[in-house]
Amino acid sequence: MESPVVTPDRIVKLSLAFRAAKALLSAVELDIFTALAEGPLGLDPLRTRLGIDQRGARDFFDALVALGMLERDQHGRYGNTPETDLYLDRQKPTYIGGELVHFSTYVYPHWDLLTPALRTGEPQSGTRATGHYSALYADHTALETFLKGMTGGSLQVANAVATKFPWPDYETFVDIGTAQGGLPVQIATVHTHLTGGGFDLPPVRLHFERYGQEHGLAPRLQFYPGDFLAEPLPAADVLILGRVLHNWDLATKRLLLKKAYDALPDGGALIVYERLIDDERRANATALLASLNMLIMTAGGFDFTGADCIGWMREAGFRDLHVELLTDDQSMVVGTKQIDKSTGASAA
Amino acid sequence: MESPVVTPDRIVKLSLAFRAAKALLSAVELDIFTALAEGPLGLDPLRTRLGIDQRGARDFFDALVALGMLERDQHGRYGNTPETDLYLDRQKPTYIGGELVHFSTYVYPHWDLLTPALRTGEPQSGTRATGHYSALYADHTALETFLKGMTGGSLQVANAVATKFPWPDYETFVDIGTAQGGLPVQIATVHTHLTGGGFDLPPVRLHFERYGQEHGLAPRLQFYPGDFLAEPLPAADVLILGRVLHNWDLATKRLLLKKAYDALPDGGALIVYERLIDDERRANATALLASLNMLIMTAGGFDFTGADCIGWMREAGFRDLHVELLTDDQSMVVGTKQIDKSTGASAA
Repeated sequence: MESPVVTPDRIVKLSLAFRAAKALLSAVELDIFTALAEGPLGLDPLRTRLGIDQRGARDFFDALVALGMLERDQHGRYGNTPETDLYLDRQKPTYIGGELVHFSTYVYPHWDLLTPALRTGEPQSGTRATGHYSALYADHTALETFLKGMTGGSLQVANAVATKFPWPDYETFVDIGTAQGGLPVQIATVHTHLTGGGFDLPPVRLHFERYGQEHGLAPRLQFYPGDFLAEPLPAADVLILGRVLHNWDLATKRLLLKKAYDALPDGGALIVYERLIDDERRANATALLASLNMLIMTAGGFDFTGADCIGWMREAGFRDLHVELLTDDQSMVVGTKQIDKSTGASAA
Repeated sequence: MESPVVTPDRIVKLSLAFRAAKALLSAVELDIFTALAEGPLGLDPLRTRLGIDQRGARDFFDALVALGMLERDQHGRYGNTPETDLYLDRQKPTYIGGELVHFSTYVYPHWDLLTPALRTGEPQSGTRATGHYSALYADHTALETFLKGMTGGSLQVANAVATKFPWPDYETFVDIGTAQGGLPVQIATVHTHLTGGGFDLPPVRLHFERYGQEHGLAPRLQFYPGDFLAEPLPAADVLILGRVLHNWDLATKRLLLKKAYDALPDGGALIVYERLIDDERRANATALLASLNMLIMTAGGFDFTGADCIGWMREAGFRDLHVELLTDDQSMVVGTKQIDKSTGASAA
């Protein structure tokens, strides 16, 4: 009697998944989806348009077809799928390709160093690993790529934060570590009664203000320059820490939560959103791998579960804590600050 | 009325697939599955055994759980899954990890160069790209890793070739580009009436003979040293070109098929097996990406469809051509040589 057949197919498929990923990332780098947003193109016109050599072009385009990222019609012309047309055409406001270019040029090569990162526990990203973004922000081109990537990568979650949080109950908000201000723009667009802004390092001001102006929100959205490690956070009814805490070690995570608590008024709220690891730590591979990304990229950063975050927020004084799903892979943890009026201290 | 919701989830998931792949590849490099083949281990004993730092260990192991490559019991101890135990434990003859180590240390970093490879059409692998394996074969450690990888990666397909081809109709066979001889060993084990061997560059002899002896097949399997670009192929009833043709440009593919035809007797057969691209070039992403791997790694290599291969084999003189599926992702193209007895020429 034979035992049930165990094949290596899943192992082989997973082990080769880097090729499929890199094909898509190179396609975004080469801006193929922007080219095809104007209409389908045959093999030679498309490769000429992109400036790629004849040798690999057909295999490349057909691989993207097989991966479901392009379509090919009966005349052999290539075109975008509905999703690549909406999210990878640089001309559309829904473009998320900035984040993919960041993956392609910066994250992919650093993941070649996963094994030494695991062996040593040390980041493999040189000066960028110190935790301060100053080095990155001093390089104007790198900063622009990074900021656009952050905006593109947070469009979906920004939309979910704008619709799922009870914004009518509040007047002001500040997004901490705001980058271009993708999140404040989204929230202020949906909720016209709100004013607020974004907090980030001084070199980000220009990018934030330009992005706000492009969306006609400059009067209601202000830039707050500062270093959240060294200075207090700005005051507002609602503060947001989105994909910030995972960059930092536990002591800094706690420090930032305490600073947020201190900056809020009585009745104010903090929103933390992240790619949370599931509490059992056995289902959400994406979040666990995001934590390994922090191992490679930062000196002390790591991702965490909703239960972890609720624990740290409770220690900082927050109450009414709950976790709510935002998108396929991201959630928010919300807590409020409630001063006990009789004593002036936080309620138990 | 809103249009149907198009989310970027598939794009984001595909774009990040390199992380999941690299986590598995690093796990194989660190030999975690061999360690756990002896029995489950808790977090600290496992990380100590592997020599990895505390910082990333738990995220790494839990990511492998979430990817389905490890299990974790109610005591928090990690163990192999049935498939990782069978295929990634170095102590088992079914080990395929050699190929994954090759992916991790050589293929993954070269795929960082996909974009320049596409732009230029030029290989990105330095001296190894010239087509000759001499440079690789001169480096003993690299050669051993490569050969083991080839054997591990061809175990499944070797088993399929051994069972699906009508071997009782033939007496002798030679595997061209045999590496360690994984395929001849498999065929000779199943079919005890056969004699034959493997053809490869002279530095491979030692590895081939050792592997044959380990499997008790040394008397029936002979090593044929040679350079198939410069010399004729050895004669046998059946010749096999397995994952060889894809390494070469079209002229060399045709040359090798002609040499195979010339070396076969009347009634002899040629087996070509590869990860064939589907004839429509729109379904088999793995094979299309394998062809891009040839773009990055070789001066002229590319993968092809069954229809392409049948066309080239027909031009070389082969008849009775057909394609047969071997495994999930590989197929063989079989053709025979039939001399027309009345004229001495090949039958039309």
